[in-house]
Amino acid sequence: MAVSSDTQMKIIKGDYGYVLEDVPHLTDYIPDLPTYPNPLRSNPAYSVVKQYFVHVDDTVPQKIVVHKDSPRGIHFRRAGPRQKVYFESDEVHACIVTCGGLCPGLNTVIRELVCGLNHMYGVTRILGIDGGYRGFYSRNTVPLTPKVVNDIHKRGGTILGTSRGGHDTSKIVDSIQDRGINQVYIIGGDGTQKGAAVIFEEIRRRGLKVAVAGIPKTIDNDIPVIDRSFGFDTAVEEAQRAINAAHVEAESIENGIGVVKLMGRYSGFIAMYATLGSRDVDCCLIPESPFYLEGNGGLFEFIEKRLKENGHMVIVIAEGAGQELLSESLNQQDASGNKLLQDVGLWISQRIKDHFAKQQKLPINLKYIDPTYMIRAIPSNASDNVYCTLLAQSAVHGAMAGYTGFTSGLVNGRQTYIPFNRITERQNKVVITDRMWARLLSSTNQPSFLNPKALSEAKKEEESHTQLLDGENFKKDESETKDIPSLT
Amino acid sequence: MAVSSDTQMKIIKGDYGYVLEDVPHLTDYIPDLPTYPNPLRSNPAYSVVKQYFVHVDDTVPQKIVVHKDSPRGIHFRRAGPRQKVYFESDEVHACIVTCGGLCPGLNTVIRELVCGLNHMYGVTRILGIDGGYRGFYSRNTVPLTPKVVNDIHKRGGTILGTSRGGHDTSKIVDSIQDRGINQVYIIGGDGTQKGAAVIFEEIRRRGLKVAVAGIPKTIDNDIPVIDRSFGFDTAVEEAQRAINAAHVEAESIENGIGVVKLMGRYSGFIAMYATLGSRDVDCCLIPESPFYLEGNGGLFEFIEKRLKENGHMVIVIAEGAGQELLSESLNQQDASGNKLLQDVGLWISQRIKDHFAKQQKLPINLKYIDPTYMIRAIPSNASDNVYCTLLAQSAVHGAMAGYTGFTSGLVNGRQTYIPFNRITERQNKVVITDRMWARLLSSTNQPSFLNPKALSEAKKEEESHTQLLDGENFKKDESETKDIPSLT
Amino acid sequence: MAVSSDTQMKIIKGDYGYVLEDVPHLTDYIPDLPTYPNPLRSNPAYSVVKQYFVHVDDTVPQKIVVHKDSPRGIHFRRAGPRQKVYFESDEVHACIVTCGGLCPGLNTVIRELVCGLNHMYGVTRILGIDGGYRGFYSRNTVPLTPKVVNDIHKRGGTILGTSRGGHDTSKIVDSIQDRGINQVYIIGGDGTQKGAAVIFEEIRRRGLKVAVAGIPKTIDNDIPVIDRSFGFDTAVEEAQRAINAAHVEAESIENGIGVVKLMGRYSGFIAMYATLGSRDVDCCLIPESPFYLEGNGGLFEFIEKRLKENGHMVIVIAEGAGQELLSESLNQQDASGNKLLQDVGLWISQRIKDHFAKQQKLPINLKYIDPTYMIRAIPSNASDNVYCTLLAQSAVHGAMAGYTGFTSGLVNGRQTYIPFNRITERQNKVVITDRMWARLLSSTNQPSFLNPKALSEAKKEEESHTQLLDGENFKKDESETKDIPSLT
Amino acid sequence: MAVSSDTQMKIIKGDYGYVLEDVPHLTDYIPDLPTYPNPLRSNPAYSVVKQYFVHVDDTVPQKIVVHKDSPRGIHFRRAGPRQKVYFESDEVHACIVTCGGLCPGLNTVIRELVCGLNHMYGVTRILGIDGGYRGFYSRNTVPLTPKVVNDIHKRGGTILGTSRGGHDTSKIVDSIQDRGINQVYIIGGDGTQKGAAVIFEEIRRRGLKVAVAGIPKTIDNDIPVIDRSFGFDTAVEEAQRAINAAHVEAESIENGIGVVKLMGRYSGFIAMYATLGSRDVDCCLIPESPFYLEGNGGLFEFIEKRLKENGHMVIVIAEGAGQELLSESLNQQDASGNKLLQDVGLWISQRIKDHFAKQQKLPINLKYIDPTYMIRAIPSNASDNVYCTLLAQSAVHGAMAGYTGFTSGLVNGRQTYIPFNRITERQNKVVITDRMWARLLSSTNQPSFLNPKALSEAKKEEESHTQLLDGENFKKDESETKDIPSLT
Repeated sequence: MAVSSDTQMKIIKGDYGYVLEDVPHLTDYIPDLPTYPNPLRSNPAYSVVKQYFVHVDDTVPQKIVVHKDSPRGIHFRRAGPRQKVYFESDEVHACIVTCGGLCPGLNTVIRELVCGLNHMYGVTRILGIDGGYRGFYSRNTVPLTPKVVNDIHKRGGTILGTSRGGHDTSKIVDSIQDRGINQVYIIGGDGTQKGAAVIFEEIRRRGLKVAVAGIPKTIDNDIPVIDRSFGFDTAVEEAQRAINAAHVEAESIENGIGVVKLMGRYSGFIAMYATLGSRDVDCCLIPESPFYLEGNGGLFEFIEKRLKENGHMVIVIAEGAGQELLSESLNQQDASGNKLLQDVGLWISQRIKDHFAKQQKLPINLKYIDPTYMIRAIPSNASDNVYCTLLAQSAVHGAMAGYTGFTSGLVNGRQTYIPFNRITERQNKVVITDRMWARLLSSTNQPSFLNPKALSEAKKEEESHTQLLDGENFKKDESETKDIPSLT
Repeated sequence: MAVSSDTQMKIIKGDYGYVLEDVPHLTDYIPDLPTYPNPLRSNPAYSVVKQYFVHVDDTVPQKIVVHKDSPRGIHFRRAGPRQKVYFESDEVHACIVTCGGLCPGLNTVIRELVCGLNHMYGVTRILGIDGGYRGFYSRNTVPLTPKVVNDIHKRGGTILGTSRGGHDTSKIVDSIQDRGINQVYIIGGDGTQKGAAVIFEEIRRRGLKVAVAGIPKTIDNDIPVIDRSFGFDTAVEEAQRAINAAHVEAESIENGIGVVKLMGRYSGFIAMYATLGSRDVDCCLIPESPFYLEGNGGLFEFIEKRLKENGHMVIVIAEGAGQELLSESLNQQDASGNKLLQDVGLWISQRIKDHFAKQQKLPINLKYIDPTYMIRAIPSNASDNVYCTLLAQSAVHGAMAGYTGFTSGLVNGRQTYIPFNRITERQNKVVITDRMWARLLSSTNQPSFLNPKALSEAKKEEESHTQLLDGENFKKDESETKDIPSLT
Repeated sequence: MAVSSDTQMKIIKGDYGYVLEDVPHLTDYIPDLPTYPNPLRSNPAYSVVKQYFVHVDDTVPQKIVVHKDSPRGIHFRRAGPRQKVYFESDEVHACIVTCGGLCPGLNTVIRELVCGLNHMYGVTRILGIDGGYRGFYSRNTVPLTPKVVNDIHKRGGTILGTSRGGHDTSKIVDSIQDRGINQVYIIGGDGTQKGAAVIFEEIRRRGLKVAVAGIPKTIDNDIPVIDRSFGFDTAVEEAQRAINAAHVEAESIENGIGVVKLMGRYSGFIAMYATLGSRDVDCCLIPESPFYLEGNGGLFEFIEKRLKENGHMVIVIAEGAGQELLSESLNQQDASGNKLLQDVGLWISQRIKDHFAKQQKLPINLKYIDPTYMIRAIPSNASDNVYCTLLAQSAVHGAMAGYTGFTSGLVNGRQTYIPFNRITERQNKVVITDRMWARLLSSTNQPSFLNPKALSEAKKEEESHTQLLDGENFKKDESETKDIPSLT
Repeated sequence: MAVSSDTQMKIIKGDYGYVLEDVPHLTDYIPDLPTYPNPLRSNPAYSVVKQYFVHVDDTVPQKIVVHKDSPRGIHFRRAGPRQKVYFESDEVHACIVTCGGLCPGLNTVIRELVCGLNHMYGVTRILGIDGGYRGFYSRNTVPLTPKVVNDIHKRGGTILGTSRGGHDTSKIVDSIQDRGINQVYIIGGDGTQKGAAVIFEEIRRRGLKVAVAGIPKTIDNDIPVIDRSFGFDTAVEEAQRAINAAHVEAESIENGIGVVKLMGRYSGFIAMYATLGSRDVDCCLIPESPFYLEGNGGLFEFIEKRLKENGHMVIVIAEGAGQELLSESLNQQDASGNKLLQDVGLWISQRIKDHFAKQQKLPINLKYIDPTYMIRAIPSNASDNVYCTLLAQSAVHGAMAGYTGFTSGLVNGRQTYIPFNRITERQNKVVITDRMWARLLSSTNQPSFLNPKALSEAKKEEESHTQLLDGENFKKDESETKDIPSLT
C-alpha cells in the first residue's frame, strides 16, 4: 500500500516555522470545476450567525504547549462550512459504509451524516452500503433518509452492518462509478482508513469527481493526531462496571483476585483511563509497558505483596498486553491483518492460578471478567453523541467544499481535516515515559516492571523516535503529552 | 471587591504578539524564600518518566484557530510538577473547602487533593473545612487522610458539606493564620473564586506564606477561559433521562408537550449540550437567547405549528431563560448575590397551558419535569473522575511550587494556571451568533425568536463586546468558538 | 354506573366454605355457541408439555394464611389455555386500547397480546385503538402485527397513545359492532375497568358475540385482589434514584431536608415500598396515614428532632397524602373524575420552609424532587416484562375460551380471571394497622402521627370495614396482610 | 449427612387432608425453658398495629391451585413475631455467617439481621463470622452494629467475606459453645443449608440452647419450596445487559451469533427468565432440557435455519447445560462438592465455530459473552432489598420465639418457617413439561430437542417423580407450576 505522500498531503509553509499539512481537493486533479454558493446561506437557522462560514485561512496547530520563542510547527486545516461548494444538491449521490469492529457511536455518525446532508445541503440520494467494504460489490444497499435514521442513535451497533478486510479497491471504485456515487463516507479504523486512502488514489487516478471522506473509528483510541476517537468516552465509562464487579468479587473472598480484560490490541488507552477513572485497580498492564511474571520485580511478586497487605487485588489487562509472553500465537493472522491474539486474560489468569497452586503458600481465588462485547455494543453517551455529530457534519462540509482524501478529526478541541497518511502512518500509543502513565503508576503504586537497562533503552528509543517524527529540539514528545489526550 | 489586577496577574510579552498572563507567586511579596528539591524525584512511579517536570517556559495559548500570519496572542502557564518546591513536606498544613451548590465530582476533587498531597508530596496534615467558607470560623474541621477519602468518589455531594455566601474575609484569614494553615484549596463557582481572590489579597497584604489555589466548580459551565468545568459532562449525560421521559410522555398523548427545566442561571450550556446529545428536543430556550411568547414568530405560534405537524413536542428550558419576562422577581437576591429566580419551568408551563386553554382550539397535555437535584447529586462519571484528578493534582503541584492566587484549569486540553481575575471578570455564555448555537437551531429547527432589528443588534453588540475583550481584528469571538468548548 | 352484580359474577359454592367467584362466559347469554379444538394442540412448542391445558376445575384461593380448621373461602378461576375455544382463528377480529396515565410495561402488554394472539392462535386481524377510549369513535386505528410490535417493549409509554375519561358507552359499542370486532382488550386503571364493565354489560344486552377482557393498569398498585399491578416493581426501583439524590443533597448541607414526592393519589404503596427498598428515608407520608404539622407529635417537631440528631433528613410523600390539609383544592375534578390534587410536594415544602423561617431557630435547606414523570416513562424491567407477558397471554387464553367481562390478574402468584366488580368495587390501600406499615415505622422510626383517640378509631374502623367485606371471624384483613403483596 | 427427618420436621395432621410440616423448637429437647413477653410490645412503631403478633395457628399451604373438592395438602408455619419469646435481650449473643458464591442482597440480609435484632429486640451482641464456615474456628470475627452496617446494602458482595466448603461440624459447634453464642444465622445455598442442618443436629445432641436459622441463598433459584431466592430478580435484570449486547453484536454482522452464558449449574431459571424478560433470544439451553448438536432436530441445524431466516441469532446457555456432552470433565469436584464444570460457553462456542468452519457453507461470526461475575457482584435492586428485609426479620422473629433448625422462606407470597430437610432434600428445577417452559419455547420458537422417545420418557419420569413426592392424585406437579414462581 505504497501511497505517495505528495498526492495525499500538500505542505504549505509560513513564517516563524509555520507548516500547514493540507488535504487534497478535487481541483487538484480536475482543474475547472464550477462552484456554487453554499445553500446554508438561505437556511434560517444560520441566518443569525455572524461569520458562520469558516475563514479560508483558519488552521489549528498540532502542538500547543509552547515557549515564548517556539517555532509555530505543524497545523491542520480547520473544518466547517465554506462559502462556496463544489456540488449542487441535486447532483450529490452519497454513500456511507461502516467497517471493522463495533464501537459506541457508529449509528450516531450514520444518523448525522444523513441528517447533515439532507437538512443542511438538501441532499436526498444517500445509500447505506451493507456489511462493510465488501458490500460495495457483493450486497444490497439501503436507501437512507432522515426518517429511517431518526432513532438509531439510541441503539448500539451499526444499522449498516460491518465486516473486516476483504476489500478489493478496483471492484469498489468500479461499483462507485457504476452507481454514480460522488461522495463516499467511510467509517472505520486504521486498516479501513488505509483502504480509504487507496480508494481515493484510484479515484484520483481515474479522474473522477468523487469526494472521499474518512471518519476515524477505533474504540482503542489508537489513531494518532486526533484528540480521541468517538466511542472512547462511552467505553471507558462502561468499563467501570466490570472493574467494580472485579473489586466486589475480590474483596468478598480471602486472597481474592479480580482480573478484567479490556480492549486495546496495540495501545492501552482504555485500560489506562478506566484505571484512572475507577481508582479501585491495583495493577494495569498494557501493550506499551512490557512486564514479566517471575522473580524480583515481577508480577507474581507484586501480587503476593499486595495480597498480604490488603487481602485482595484487581488487575486490569489490555488485550494486547504481554504478547511477547505468548510466543506460540505469533504467526496467526485474522482477516484484517491484525495478529490474532490469544486471549491474554484467560492466559494470565491461568498462569497466576498455576503459580500460586504450585507455590502452595497462598491459596488464591481468581475471578476473570471479559466485558469486551458488553462495552462495544452499548449506545454512545451524550458526550460521544455530540462529538459524533460534529465529526459527521465536518465531513459533510468538507466533501461539499470539494475536499477529498481527508479524515475528519478533533485536534486540540477543534474540528479539522487531516490527510489520510497522517492518520495511518503510525498508531497512537500510551507513552510510558510520559506523565499520564506516571499518574497511573502513582495511583496504583504498581511496579514499573522495568529493570534499569530496559528503562534507559525506553528513554533512548523514545527520543530517537520522536526526533524522527518531529525534527524539533524542545519538548519532543509533545504530541503525546496532552493532559487529556483521549478524554478531551 | 475592587481587586487591582496588577497584584493578581503578571503580564509577560514576547515576539510576534506573544502574551503570557502569569499567576502570582509567593516570592512576589516574600523575597527570599528557600526552595527544596521536589520529593517526586525519589518517587519510584516517576522514575521512568523522561522530562517529568514541566519546563519552566511551558505555556498554552488561549486561541488556537490561527492563520499563517496570526499574532500569537494570550497564553497561560502550563500546570504540573516543578523541579523545585517552596514547601517541605513536614511544613505543609493544607485545608480544603467546598462552597456553593452541589456538582458531580466534588468528592473526587477532595479525594485527589488529599491523595495527591499525601502520596506525591508526603503531606500528612490536611484539614477539611466543614460547611463552606463560614466553616473557617464557625464550625468543626475534619482531618483528611487517604483512608478517609478512599471511596468518597463513588458518592455524590461533598463529604465536607457546603453553603452559600456568608464569607467574612478577615475572619477567614484570621482562622487560617491561627491554625497555621499554609495551603488553601478552594473549590467553588464564580462567587467563591471572587472570594478566594480577596482572601489571597488579604494574605498577601499580611505577608503570609500561604498559597491559595482555586478549583473552579460550576455545573453550568459558566466560567470563562477553561474548556469545561468538572461535572458538566456527567450533568449533560444525566439530563438525557429527563429528556427521554419528556419525550415518552409527550408522544403517548394527543398534543403532548414535555417541558424539561435544566440548570443554567446565566448560561445555557447544559441545555444546549443536552439538546444536542439527545436529538429528541424541539425547542431549547436559554438565557442568552431572548424569546417572546405571543404573536408572529413567538413561542406559542411555534408550539402550535409543531403540534400540528408531529402531534407532540419537547421543550428544554434553562433555569435562567426568559428572566426579562418574569419582571416581578427582579429585585430578590439570594445569599450569594445571585438573583433569586422564580422557577421559570413552572411559569412557562402555566403560560402555555393558559394560552391554549384560552384559545380553546388545541387541547394540550403538558408534563413538566425538573430533574435539577437528581442531576446535581449523582457521582461523577469516569470522564469527569479523570478530569477531577488532573485538576486536583495540578493545584497541588502549583501550590507546592509556590504559585498562589491561581485557578487550576483546562485550556485547550492542557492543564494550566490561570489568574483569578481572568476567571471572575465575566461569565462564560453561549454565543448565539456562533456556530454551536447554529448547529442547535439546525438540529431543532426552532425559530431564532429574533426579529431582524434584534438580530442586527445582537451582531453589533457581539462585535463591540469581543473587540473590547480581545483587541484583535480577526476572529474576534475565537474564545467562544471552540468546537467542543465544554465537552472537551 | 349501576351494574347488577349477578351479570358480572357467578357464585359457586362447595364444601367446607369453598366459594368460587366465577367470571361471565359468552354462553351465559348466547346459548348454543359452537366450540373448536384449541389450535395450541398442534403447536410444536406445546407438544412436550404434559397437562398443558388448565383443568376446568382449577381455582386459586384469595386467602392463604389458614388454620387447621379454617373454612376455605373465596376462590378465583385459574387462567390459562383451555381444551376448547369459542372462536376460530380466522373469525377473530381483536382490538386493543390503552387508557389513563403512563405506566412502565404498557408496550409490553400490547406486544404480548399481539404476539400471543398471532403466534398461539393464528389471529391476524388485530387493531390498535388510537388514544384511549375516545379513539373508538373519533380517531384512526393502527393495524398491529408481531413485526410492528417487535421492539416496542424496550420503549416507555404506549405506542397506541392514551387519554383520560371521555367515554361514551353506546358509541364505543356501536364502533365495535360496526367494525366487526369480537375481542376487546382494555388496558387501564380503576376508572377504565369500570368503563370496561359497562361496555361488557352493553354488549351482553345487545347479545353480541364479543369477549371483553381487562388488564388492570395502575402504577399506584391500588387495584384490589391482585398481588401487584404491572409496572409497580419498575416504579419502585426507579424511585430509588430520586431518594438517593434527596439523601445526597440533604447530607451535603447543614440542616438539609430532601423532600421526594412519589405517585399515589389514594394509596401509598410506591412511597412505602420505595422507602423500605431505600432505607435512607426518615419519614414516609401516605394518604392512608393522616398526619399533622404543628404541635406535639406533629411533623415539624419530628423534623426538628431529626435534624438535631443527624443534621439532615429525607421525607417521602405520596401525592395524595395530607389532602385533608389542603382543603381549598377539594372541589376541583379532573376529566376522569379523580380529584385534581394540588401538588402536595410543593405545598409541604413551602409549609416546612415557612415554619422554620418564622421560628428563626433552625435555618433549614430544603430541596424538593418530583420524579413522577421520569418514573412513569421508563420501559419496564425484566421482572415486569415477564409479568406483562403472563397477563397478556392469560387474557388471550380467556377470551379465546369464551370468557368475557373478566380481568386478568395475579392472585397469590397464580394467573386468574377475576370478575370486573371485584376489581372496581373498592381501592387497594396500605393498611396502616398492618405489619407492613409497622415494618416501615420501625425502619424509619417516624412517629405514627396518631393520637390515642385516632388510633383506637383506626382500629375500630378497620375491624368493621373488614367484617363487612369478609364476613368471617378470623384474620379479617387477610387480603391486606400479604407479606410481599405488591412485589410478589 | 444422614439426618433423621423426625428430628428435623414435625408432622401435624388435620381434617380434610391438612398437613403441617412444622419446624423444630428449642423446647423439643430442652423442656422447661422460661418465656418472656415480646419486647416489641413496647415498641411505639408497633403500637398502632392490630393483631401484630402472628397467630399461633397461622399456616400457609404449599399448593394453592385447588379444586372444589381438593384435599388441603401440605402447609408451613407462618413466620413473624410471637407474643412470647425464649430469649431475653441481654442474653442474646448472635452470630452471622455467609457461605458460597456471591449473590446480590447478601449485604442487605446482613444489615437487616443486625438492625432487626438491635432495633426490634434490643440485642447488642452480634458477631460477624469472617470468611464463611471456616471462619468459626480459624479467623477473626467482626462486631456488628447498626452503624457499621448502615450503608452496606448499597454495595455488592458480602462485608463478612465468604468461602466454599471446608466445614467441620464439631469444631464449629465447639466454637459456638466456647464463644457463648446462642443464635446462629447462616446465609448460604444448598450445601450450606445441609451444613446448617448438621450443625443443628449436633447442637440438639449436645442439648444447647442455641437457635439455628438458615436464610437460603442461591442466585440460581434452585432451592425448592420457596417462591424465589433473594437476588434472583436482580440477576435476571442485570442479565438483560449481556443479552442486549449479544443481540447488537449479532445484528451488526453477517451471520452473527451471540452466545451468552448465564448462571445455573443444575437449574436453568436465570436463563429461562432472562430469555422471557428480553424477547431477543432465539435459543435457550438449560440443564433440565437435554439437547444434541448434530443431525436432524439438532442445534446446528436450528442455527443454520435461523441464520438463513434472520441473518443473526442469540443463544443463551445456562452454565450447567449440556453437561452430558462434556464427558471429560465428569470426575472433577470442587471444594463444595459441586462438579467442577468446564466452561460450557467456551465449549459450545468452539463447537459451533468448528462445525460451520468445517462445513464451509455459512461463514459465521460468533461473539461469546460471560457476564457471570458482573451479575453476581452488583447490589440488590429495590425489590430484592424489600425481600431480604422480610427474610432477615422473619429469621430473627423465629429465633427469638425459640424455633430452630428452620429456614426462613417465602411460600406463595407469605413468609414461612420451613424445616431444613424440605429445603435440602432435592433441588428446584425447571420442569420442562410444564407451562412456563412451554411459554419459553413458544417465545423463542426453538426446537424441543426431544425425540419422541425421550419425550415420552420425560413425561413418565415426571409423573413417577411427582407421585413419590406428593402422594396425591390430581395436579401432581403443582409445586412446580407456579405462574411466576421466582419473580413472585
